[in-house]
Amino acid sequence: MAKKAVILLSGGLDSATTLAIAKSEGFETYAISFRYGQRHAFELDLAKKLAKTGGVEKHLIMDIDLRGLGGSSLTGYNPVPKDRSLEEMSAGIPTTYVPARNTIFLSFALSWAEVLGAEDIFVGVNALDYAGYPDCRPEYIEAFEKMAGLATKAGVEGTQHLKIHTPLIDLSKAQIIKKGLNLGVAYALTSSCYDPSSEGEACGRCDSCLLRLKGFAEVGVIDPIRYATA
Amino acid sequence: MAKKAVILLSGGLDSATTLAIAKSEGFETYAISFRYGQRHAFELDLAKKLAKTGGVEKHLIMDIDLRGLGGSSLTGYNPVPKDRSLEEMSAGIPTTYVPARNTIFLSFALSWAEVLGAEDIFVGVNALDYAGYPDCRPEYIEAFEKMAGLATKAGVEGTQHLKIHTPLIDLSKAQIIKKGLNLGVAYALTSSCYDPSSEGEACGRCDSCLLRLKGFAEVGVIDPIRYATA
Repeated sequence: MAKKAVILLSGGLDSATTLAIAKSEGFETYAISFRYGQRHAFELDLAKKLAKTGGVEKHLIMDIDLRGLGGSSLTGYNPVPKDRSLEEMSAGIPTTYVPARNTIFLSFALSWAEVLGAEDIFVGVNALDYAGYPDCRPEYIEAFEKMAGLATKAGVEGTQHLKIHTPLIDLSKAQIIKKGLNLGVAYALTSSCYDPSSEGEACGRCDSCLLRLKGFAEVGVIDPIRYATA
Repeated sequence: MAKKAVILLSGGLDSATTLAIAKSEGFETYAISFRYGQRHAFELDLAKKLAKTGGVEKHLIMDIDLRGLGGSSLTGYNPVPKDRSLEEMSAGIPTTYVPARNTIFLSFALSWAEVLGAEDIFVGVNALDYAGYPDCRPEYIEAFEKMAGLATKAGVEGTQHLKIHTPLIDLSKAQIIKKGLNLGVAYALTSSCYDPSSEGEACGRCDSCLLRLKGFAEVGVIDPIRYATA
């Protein structure tokens, strides 16, 4: 019987690739997505399609509106930064940072993993492109894994030895895309934009779009999604 | 200026006492509660009243329905255990355990603390009465605190040194009640029952009611709330 794994699936390029990697390693996959008040909720429609085409066993979308907590341009009314150079992107933690978001998401994944009897959680964090996000660093993931081992009934009873898989953590965007293309990821069904139009057209100018476009350019493949600035 | 603290406030006896302790230590208090699909959602009405009478600066109620995750008699349709002896209660982790619940709750508290610029989170976990709950143990809290220090922008930038306060962790229920009475906690506005009637009357027979009644009996004070079995 295949081992079960819980995958954090946002509908973005990274998580779609992560899902394909988990499948390629033989896991039975359980995807979890979050409607957290993001202005790019369009990505959830893509997550649904990715889950369907990606052979996911079950796909949960959790409703957890983080807007009441405040603190981010991704869930608030502050503008998403545009047209920044790589230097500007790496100069500090951007306003698109959502306080403790990965901790919140991983906590739900942990809960579901315990219910499913899964010992494996996959998350597409990346320490290179998002150097500014504290909760994308290996030391953070390690600390979460350690805490998770003490947090659950299954952990305490010794039936669950939780592992957080971060297959993208050391990869550049180009390397991620190459890997994904080899695994047949449907990148046309992904969106990375922080500020898409109501029809889901990517802006092509936020940090996330710029990193994605640079990645595809480096691989020498045309990004299959639609951009407002073409 | 008083330091800000985030308090997990369920509306139960323990969290009400914890709130009073945080106030007595001079913190400006920010209470957070969760509508997570618990069958005892009645406690949220009490949490609101406690926040008001307890001088809380701001009270957030987050909607995070955990029922989709399954796995607990507190959020599901399995019966809540009744009339158990202390021996039975301490024999294992009960079905009322909600997988990774404290991790989820603390993650939201962490996010809000970062937004508020708070370094202190108070949670009324108790390692004695709830020996069976893994996420009420000191080693778990310590691991969460360590992870939290790596999870946030404020932590990485060195402006936030997060501390999780667990003032009740070593106390018996009687000791908690004594402390709370000294601080003037309105225990009439608390509910501990896992399975209250639709009017909020406590069952008097679930683990939580039995521990509460035993605590009041030991202190020699009459519990001011209404029980179905009087």
